[in-house]
Amino acid sequence: MSDELCRKLGYQFKQPKILKTALTHRSFSDENNERLEFLGDSIVNFIIAEVLYHRFPQAQEGALSRWRATLINRDTLGDLGRGFDLGRYLFLGPGELKSGGSERQSILSCAMEAIIGAVYLDNGFEAARECILRWYDSLINSLTKASSHKDPKTTLQEYLQSQHMSLPIYEVQSVEGESHQQIFIVSCSVENITEKTLGKGTSRRRAEQDAAEAMLGILKK
Amino acid sequence: MSDELCRKLGYQFKQPKILKTALTHRSFSDENNERLEFLGDSIVNFIIAEVLYHRFPQAQEGALSRWRATLINRDTLGDLGRGFDLGRYLFLGPGELKSGGSERQSILSCAMEAIIGAVYLDNGFEAARECILRWYDSLINSLTKASSHKDPKTTLQEYLQSQHMSLPIYEVQSVEGESHQQIFIVSCSVENITEKTLGKGTSRRRAEQDAAEAMLGILKK
Repeated sequence: MSDELCRKLGYQFKQPKILKTALTHRSFSDENNERLEFLGDSIVNFIIAEVLYHRFPQAQEGALSRWRATLINRDTLGDLGRGFDLGRYLFLGPGELKSGGSERQSILSCAMEAIIGAVYLDNGFEAARECILRWYDSLINSLTKASSHKDPKTTLQEYLQSQHMSLPIYEVQSVEGESHQQIFIVSCSVENITEKTLGKGTSRRRAEQDAAEAMLGILKK
Repeated sequence: MSDELCRKLGYQFKQPKILKTALTHRSFSDENNERLEFLGDSIVNFIIAEVLYHRFPQAQEGALSRWRATLINRDTLGDLGRGFDLGRYLFLGPGELKSGGSERQSILSCAMEAIIGAVYLDNGFEAARECILRWYDSLINSLTKASSHKDPKTTLQEYLQSQHMSLPIYEVQSVEGESHQQIFIVSCSVENITEKTLGKGTSRRRAEQDAAEAMLGILKK
């Protein structure tokens, strides 16, 4: 069983007893994973902070903190655990077992943190870091993509600047609906382009993005 | 100036520019210490967690978390900074300077975290760890002492068990005063000891501790 999990994790424990502790919920035994969870939480927090710091040299502290929070919250860690089918390997007390504890996000995420603490105790900082980077690889890559994906207004502005053209002009054409669910209609016009585009959205900004996207469509033709 | 600070910190920066960034508040420049603070916060969080984990092998996760929170909160980090006279070396905007920002706990604690991040970038994980352990040495030692100091009830119980005697009996003798400032009087009696002792305190537990201490005094005679 534990060999099977190690293969999924891509990490072979030298001291299988530590892995067993990491998989043991407090409902099963006093020798459980709570201390390892404390340790693992602080390790993943640090490693992810460090990756984000280097990967996004232009990002401000606020964005870094938000991304980190998303990457190490209960849901993300729980999903990671689910990806390893972790629930099958947990030691749970009869009550937790009966009530579906092995699929509960909180139990899975704590066990993932405990496993990170266990890898650290088993084989040091670099081993823990290597595991975390591997397990988080696709999550961090999609963050990188998402953050480098520019919104249509920015893309349009940069395109016009590269062509030495004037900046686009956005104008609100109408606002419909009641205050808590308004729909904005915004036009986008560009000097020397006869066509105006219209955009629609639940905020002025969204409507502008929509209009910018339409204008990009015209310019690309 | 910066050499003087390095002497106090006990760490010589290879890249003084990083230290300068760590000392620069956002009110002074866009190239400020906020990103380094993000990094340093996660490092000190991990190193302190690891120290506590190993130093207190019997402690539960709840106690470890509480102690860590105390060691890395704004006040503790701010006091550390104050101990290095950090306020003198900060780069603050005119507004912050005028309003006493160089003595503000939040600014000092952020700068301490940024310095930790700076040491890490300058010279790696072991350098940062070495600094943190040195700066926190006396704080962690006093925590160790405080946590190893047993309360009188525990000491009395362990003494009686070692003598194969029965456990002490505590009885509330009276409760005086109004509900928000009650005084409890509790007696402590031990089989085969003719004297009873009395303890007094603002809670039942405190009164029991007081009575246990008096009983220890009798037994030690």
